[in-house]
Amino acid sequence: MRITHDGWEIIRYEENISIHKKDTLAVESPLTIQLNGNEFATLVCSPSHLEDLVCGFLASEGIIYTLDDIQELSVDMERGFAHVTLNRVIDPSHFDHSKRFIGSCCGKSRQFYFKSDIRTAKTIKHLLTITPSTCYKLMNRMQAMSDIFQQTGNMHNAALCTVDKVLFMRHDIGRHNALDKIYGKILTDHISVRDKIIVFSGRISSEVLLKISKIGVGILLSKSAPTDLAIKLANDLGITVAGFIRGERMNVYSHPERIVNG
Amino acid sequence: MRITHDGWEIIRYEENISIHKKDTLAVESPLTIQLNGNEFATLVCSPSHLEDLVCGFLASEGIIYTLDDIQELSVDMERGFAHVTLNRVIDPSHFDHSKRFIGSCCGKSRQFYFKSDIRTAKTIKHLLTITPSTCYKLMNRMQAMSDIFQQTGNMHNAALCTVDKVLFMRHDIGRHNALDKIYGKILTDHISVRDKIIVFSGRISSEVLLKISKIGVGILLSKSAPTDLAIKLANDLGITVAGFIRGERMNVYSHPERIVNG
Repeated sequence: MRITHDGWEIIRYEENISIHKKDTLAVESPLTIQLNGNEFATLVCSPSHLEDLVCGFLASEGIIYTLDDIQELSVDMERGFAHVTLNRVIDPSHFDHSKRFIGSCCGKSRQFYFKSDIRTAKTIKHLLTITPSTCYKLMNRMQAMSDIFQQTGNMHNAALCTVDKVLFMRHDIGRHNALDKIYGKILTDHISVRDKIIVFSGRISSEVLLKISKIGVGILLSKSAPTDLAIKLANDLGITVAGFIRGERMNVYSHPERIVNG
Repeated sequence: MRITHDGWEIIRYEENISIHKKDTLAVESPLTIQLNGNEFATLVCSPSHLEDLVCGFLASEGIIYTLDDIQELSVDMERGFAHVTLNRVIDPSHFDHSKRFIGSCCGKSRQFYFKSDIRTAKTIKHLLTITPSTCYKLMNRMQAMSDIFQQTGNMHNAALCTVDKVLFMRHDIGRHNALDKIYGKILTDHISVRDKIIVFSGRISSEVLLKISKIGVGILLSKSAPTDLAIKLANDLGITVAGFIRGERMNVYSHPERIVNG
């Protein structure tokens, strides 16, 4: 199998009959973030909106709080590097972003397990409401817009919405990356999140839920199902989660007070 | 929303009508691996077959090669810890498992980007063959067996198979974890992989493909699509990838010489 100018050459089988045909595959690229000259993390991602991805990832990890924390950011797409210079020296403990948090959390309600989550997850208090029919409408619009998904069958989609419309959508082969691209764009454009909704194609794990909390959005709509830990965190962090949104049906798993019949 | 003895209480909407009902959610748990007393990594996983998961993960990362490298392994499920004592001191560079590999790889064919992959990925040379109808049959059997998937809509499934049957299947909310559970069981039971096939429910990223190469299996069948980087690696590493297996149809993306009409 090889790459040609207009795509990949594959073999399509139907029962025992094979034909050669052209196909399109989702592009996957490694991106290593160098922070003040030191290797910080390598993300494997779809190569689009990489500046937003880097900003959103660094904010998720508690390294930056606003874009003003970044003195310089350049992305070398060809070699797969992002070089970030911060306006300050980094606390070395921030390089422990994958270290487990062990300690006084036991017995408390919140179930964080990574250090960076404690720094950055926040409880959502604003009470935007939404009708069931708006939930169905926004999911349908995002699905209709996601032609990359339909072309390669391989993308996660996330969209930032108001109750009226989809503001923008981001795609990535990685679920977290799609959300970090949304987060980076919010920071870059100084978008207020109080009246916003995130619509998401993927499953809702605890990591996805924590990302929504860090972004600060109070309503998460998904086509797929959540895990138990995600819903425990959603209850604690004040986030409304609706899942399995298909056609005109859905399940509401947490904080149903934001879903009202209009 | 809250947990009851027989599941989660959710609100089901159909159009504007809501009903309260019970639902089952996939369980998600953090598991921190302590290696010779030091924190090595935290996996977020489905809490089953955790010993296999730990062994498979450590083998994937190049920390162990056989089960004999482990002196002691105990899993504390309640607190979410696995304590592993190796028969040797660990090279500190092994703690850099997420460090990007930069150097002489540029210009070469293989596109590794993590240090641990260079240590552990291997080219598959054995030439087991399979018919298209066996590919369809194995995928159908795994799907039929995956009742957890059907209950919660949230699981990734992986199965180790011969051309005759599914030997065993593992589930996890994480795609990599399902494969690491397979790998750990192979190591524990000293299973030869030369005549084996892996059937997988999820998308094939470069990380999934590298995991298959580390396990040493030459045929990967999936319900979903691969990325471009996964297929570049599959071409290099000698792995046959068939994807989008649905009913009696599939796409073959790499090394089609293993798929033969019987």
